[in-house]
Amino acid sequence: MRFEIQKTDLAARIGRMQTGHGTVETPAYVPVIHPAKQTIPASRIKEMGFDIVITNAYITRNTYGHDEAVRRGIHDIIKYDGAIMTDSGGYQVLEYGKVGVTPPEMAEFERGIRTDFAIPLDKPTGFGMGRDAAESYVRDTLRVSREALRAAEGAGGGDSGQTWIGPIQGGEHRDLVARSTKSLVRMGFEMLALGSPVEFMESYEYRLLAEMIATAKSNMPHGIPLHLFGAGHPLTIPLAVALGCDTFDSASYILYAKHGRYMTEDGTRTLDEIEYFPCCCAVCSRYEPDELRLMPQEQRVNNIAVHNLYAIKLEVDRTKQAITEGRLWEYVMKKSRAHPRLYEAVTHLMAPSSSSLSSASAPSSATSAPPPDIIGMFRAGTPQYKQKAAFLYGAEDQHRPEVAAYHDIVRKFRTRKSIVAITPESHTKPGYMSREYRELYKRSRESDDVQFCQYSPILGIIPIEISDVYPAAHHEQARVRVDPAACTEFAKTWDAFFGNNGFAEVWYDKGDAFLGHFAKRLKDVKKRSLKRTVAAAARRTGAAPQYNRPSKIKKKEKERL
Amino acid sequence: MRFEIQKTDLAARIGRMQTGHGTVETPAYVPVIHPAKQTIPASRIKEMGFDIVITNAYITRNTYGHDEAVRRGIHDIIKYDGAIMTDSGGYQVLEYGKVGVTPPEMAEFERGIRTDFAIPLDKPTGFGMGRDAAESYVRDTLRVSREALRAAEGAGGGDSGQTWIGPIQGGEHRDLVARSTKSLVRMGFEMLALGSPVEFMESYEYRLLAEMIATAKSNMPHGIPLHLFGAGHPLTIPLAVALGCDTFDSASYILYAKHGRYMTEDGTRTLDEIEYFPCCCAVCSRYEPDELRLMPQEQRVNNIAVHNLYAIKLEVDRTKQAITEGRLWEYVMKKSRAHPRLYEAVTHLMAPSSSSLSSASAPSSATSAPPPDIIGMFRAGTPQYKQKAAFLYGAEDQHRPEVAAYHDIVRKFRTRKSIVAITPESHTKPGYMSREYRELYKRSRESDDVQFCQYSPILGIIPIEISDVYPAAHHEQARVRVDPAACTEFAKTWDAFFGNNGFAEVWYDKGDAFLGHFAKRLKDVKKRSLKRTVAAAARRTGAAPQYNRPSKIKKKEKERL
Repeated sequence: MRFEIQKTDLAARIGRMQTGHGTVETPAYVPVIHPAKQTIPASRIKEMGFDIVITNAYITRNTYGHDEAVRRGIHDIIKYDGAIMTDSGGYQVLEYGKVGVTPPEMAEFERGIRTDFAIPLDKPTGFGMGRDAAESYVRDTLRVSREALRAAEGAGGGDSGQTWIGPIQGGEHRDLVARSTKSLVRMGFEMLALGSPVEFMESYEYRLLAEMIATAKSNMPHGIPLHLFGAGHPLTIPLAVALGCDTFDSASYILYAKHGRYMTEDGTRTLDEIEYFPCCCAVCSRYEPDELRLMPQEQRVNNIAVHNLYAIKLEVDRTKQAITEGRLWEYVMKKSRAHPRLYEAVTHLMAPSSSSLSSASAPSSATSAPPPDIIGMFRAGTPQYKQKAAFLYGAEDQHRPEVAAYHDIVRKFRTRKSIVAITPESHTKPGYMSREYRELYKRSRESDDVQFCQYSPILGIIPIEISDVYPAAHHEQARVRVDPAACTEFAKTWDAFFGNNGFAEVWYDKGDAFLGHFAKRLKDVKKRSLKRTVAAAARRTGAAPQYNRPSKIKKKEKERL
Repeated sequence: MRFEIQKTDLAARIGRMQTGHGTVETPAYVPVIHPAKQTIPASRIKEMGFDIVITNAYITRNTYGHDEAVRRGIHDIIKYDGAIMTDSGGYQVLEYGKVGVTPPEMAEFERGIRTDFAIPLDKPTGFGMGRDAAESYVRDTLRVSREALRAAEGAGGGDSGQTWIGPIQGGEHRDLVARSTKSLVRMGFEMLALGSPVEFMESYEYRLLAEMIATAKSNMPHGIPLHLFGAGHPLTIPLAVALGCDTFDSASYILYAKHGRYMTEDGTRTLDEIEYFPCCCAVCSRYEPDELRLMPQEQRVNNIAVHNLYAIKLEVDRTKQAITEGRLWEYVMKKSRAHPRLYEAVTHLMAPSSSSLSSASAPSSATSAPPPDIIGMFRAGTPQYKQKAAFLYGAEDQHRPEVAAYHDIVRKFRTRKSIVAITPESHTKPGYMSREYRELYKRSRESDDVQFCQYSPILGIIPIEISDVYPAAHHEQARVRVDPAACTEFAKTWDAFFGNNGFAEVWYDKGDAFLGHFAKRLKDVKKRSLKRTVAAAARRTGAAPQYNRPSKIKKKEKERL
């Protein structure tokens, strides 16, 4: 199977999988199709824009029998001409304990029905399983996976156009997830799937879910796609995609519908709670909520299910559009406001130092394996330069990749000047084009020895010479009070900037409480009021600089980035 | 015209206006229909669910002539059988300076064409007009409005089923807006309209726009509906509705479409920027972005315009659903993350003390009139009890009405107990049902003299006896670090709680940095480690309390709320 990555943002990517039944663009939602009791025809689902579906090989075998199923093939059975993934019944193991078919038999059957993506008969660990049991489930799953892959290779393997997907298990035991992932990669799987997020989501354990995804991702090569089992809710799709999931299946669109549960971008509502459809899909534009409530059961369920499919597709498309615009960070942050537990997960993952979970009630992971470096993953996938301005709101944005990259540049900035003048950033960007800077430059006659800087609480110190580097040149910062104590990246850059350069004086507005907070950290630097100093300089028109240059000024090599 | 208010949240309301052409549910978007060059038939717009439109009486008169227009009536001219509002050409004054028709002539014409809602020929002040000019425009508008209303009353008035709308002008000059509003109410207008937000929005001056709306609202009776001229973008609709706007018109759906501008919930994009439609409306489900780009000009413009109408309607419906759920605060806060300038406006308006605008670059209003009490307006409109849990994220939520109401209760709470024990709030709510509380109660043998409290950084101190009052009993708080310095409401409640009660001791976890920040404010209260104190008490099983009760304990009347 060929998988090409076309665009990236954070750890998300837009890619294309070439299959025996067409190209599938990722990230893609993979609707679950029931091989016998499907009420929304798979062909209708294809028309809605879903180019890949998943169905259950175990139920197919039980319903049609081995021979008929193999004779017809899965595409004929579910009447769908796009790409098909088959689950082998692992979830049935989780639900009912045993399935009455051996792993090699299932593998042979999945080959026989000519599915595009086959999954070995895994044993899902779910959430909340003890470590010993989980470890034995992982071991069994790995063994079965190896056998399935060997058998497939013996039977023609890659040539048949069929892709085997390696199932990662381990649940909240991060070390097991890591081991699982590495083993499957070594075995040669071209695609992996991460098991059992459903229980995490039902317990609102979004943070553990995210750490599980990140653990798997950080142990597999970039070029291999990752499927996420059973995670198709609009609420969590942007985060899962941001963490690098390429496909994700779920039957929730129809299961929810059966209980009158209507998906919205911010969570699920019962149909009874809906006065106004917060949606403009074909169903919601055609009917009023009351009309839907009064429909016969089957018609109502199908209509809600179709709406749910639209809601999921919309979320995937919005997320893809955000990747294209380079605004996935903004989108995930905004989305996190849909539920406090999601907000707390996103805050912890995307802004670890500034707003970590309150100690009182933070859930802890079940293993002592170190948490995955999510910020590092995000930096690796984010372009250095973007077309659109970065939107900055508060301290939670200091770790976003473009901002972190700019901090790194400034932390290596060197100048031989002995005075630094720091002013709030100008609305005009880059700062050196601004009226504020030009006037300040003109009025401060000793400008030869003054390093001019602007600052943003989030982006940090912006030396005027590099105010044209992205995102310094191209961002929009909300003008709200930011807690200086939360600006840990600003503090690090401040210390590096003053540590690397031998400034004898710093000029700034003494009424600026934010800068005042950091100026306290400076011991050997004279703090002067920018306004008074510049006014005095302006009065001495043409006079030579009259500053005492303390001998302790270190004369470093001028090294400008 | 009858206007009935059915549900409220913040200053928003869901209402019904009875007109001569059907019932209009508010908040309602009022699409602008061109009386001669409309490319999307008004009947199609009605089918989409818009029960009221606005058209221009001035252009109608110029196009069809007075006599033909009066003979046919406006409903026949634009082929629309719902409620029609007619603008009189005031915007043309703003754009072109003069219109060649006198105000009484226009008033007579608007009556003649039998519009449902008529607007006198006002002089819009727009944004950025000097005070003197604005004042004279306001004066002229008031005079014309008085004449129009008198003439209407002379001609049959209320009996004709026609409603005259009083146009409020004044722009960013808040005192003029206030004066304008009061005068129109005194004249007897049953509905008011607030002028010229377009220029505010084009300058991203969302904060001044919001203050202008709030100024008008705080000077008019609750029962009169308010129309907002020219403000129909999904980005600002939730905020405008939250501030109490009932209807709002705009032609942007078609004007934007002519320039290939596609509306999204987060702002406008050019069609060229769209790779994936972030929408599932009839247009966006039917075509791919490339298909739309390749269409002939007229067809493309109409399709984008229809999409834009869907996008606006969706935003209105989402906002109405949020009102129904009692989650409008959450929705406006989330929405504000769509653009830093919107965020900054919402932060300033809805959380004034904790995160006010940074002083460096805050825009200031043009007048010294005091800013309207928006928080007070929100409190007046918000139900005391809600079905759904309040979602709390951070310090920005401390001013939301339900939270502020709880702070008020606790600030009046009295107890005669001399010890207060404060613990973080339990997940189980109300707190007195929690395992944490029951264990603490059991272990601390001197419980007769201990006032047990839980706390949330946002909701404040929660005395266990009133932990079942909404929203203490029914909220979901994100477990993230909250800056204690930003929790100004917590500080006020803390001071009142300790000031009103004569506690000699406070027991809390000494490792709790949040409580530690506030414990520093206590001078005459002994601070003890909750854990050690309770452990010691537990060891003295059955022993009588052994605390020294300082004589300074004030014995107040037990007054529990």
